[in-house]
Amino acid sequence: MAQIPDVRSLAGILLPLARERGATIATAESCTGGLIAAAITDEAGSSAIFDRGFVTYSNIAKQDMLGVREQTLTEHGAVSERVAAEMAEGALMRSKATLAVSVTGIAGPGGSDNKPEGRVWFGLACQGTVHTEMLEFGPLGRAGVRAATRDHALRLLIAALDQRLP
Amino acid sequence: MAQIPDVRSLAGILLPLARERGATIATAESCTGGLIAAAITDEAGSSAIFDRGFVTYSNIAKQDMLGVREQTLTEHGAVSERVAAEMAEGALMRSKATLAVSVTGIAGPGGSDNKPEGRVWFGLACQGTVHTEMLEFGPLGRAGVRAATRDHALRLLIAALDQRLP
Repeated sequence: MAQIPDVRSLAGILLPLARERGATIATAESCTGGLIAAAITDEAGSSAIFDRGFVTYSNIAKQDMLGVREQTLTEHGAVSERVAAEMAEGALMRSKATLAVSVTGIAGPGGSDNKPEGRVWFGLACQGTVHTEMLEFGPLGRAGVRAATRDHALRLLIAALDQRLP
Repeated sequence: MAQIPDVRSLAGILLPLARERGATIATAESCTGGLIAAAITDEAGSSAIFDRGFVTYSNIAKQDMLGVREQTLTEHGAVSERVAAEMAEGALMRSKATLAVSVTGIAGPGGSDNKPEGRVWFGLACQGTVHTEMLEFGPLGRAGVRAATRDHALRLLIAALDQRLP
């Protein structure tokens, strides 16, 4: 892990890359509660590449703001691949952004056998395609899971802009 | 300033107070870009009192997500009392929250003679009333202005719940 830059650097890598690609970004955050948007906008000049962020902490906010279907929430739960996908798609459709990232996970403290602390689903939507992935960060504690989730979301955006994602 | 608790403590004060009052909170953030929502959701159990956050970085996002009028933006600029008021009112109307806070300011680096770095307008809406205020934090740098803005927004929420605001 020695080569992975810190969060300041991640947002600092993202900003010029997005600008170079002519991309604009939207975020859809559940467990991080705004941390990803905050990291991106920590960079001066981010208004050129950041359009808006949806902090959809409650299920009803996910439905209202992003169009996540009630049935998806009921059948799969908020921390699921389908919800992550619908969050990212919704953020893309309901913004002016060309690229949207979503996160939904168990920040803890605590989780269940089914959905342990540290499990996070990510979604990345652009141009009619959506990529999803799940990471198990383990019981890092609430702040640890949230920070790791923020960093991975920034890396996903960088990878997408760098065309290292399908 | 010695008596003012740190941000962790501010969110930690806010959470039980909101719970006691049966209040739920929405945030509408421009210059802080998600920092206020992130501070509130840093607390375990925040889902009981935090409904959603709008990170409206662009003007078009302020219009789309919060219903800020184009005319208000044109006539007063994004960093203005009217925009702060419309952001807070919009966040209240477009959420399930009972209390909404908004911030719009010049995080810098740099500003203009008219709108210097560190100037921030705050809005606080609940039950058909909206309170606004402006602070000049001065040239604290981007991170400094954003952190000071986040902390003051948390204090405004605490004061409102504590009925120390009109």
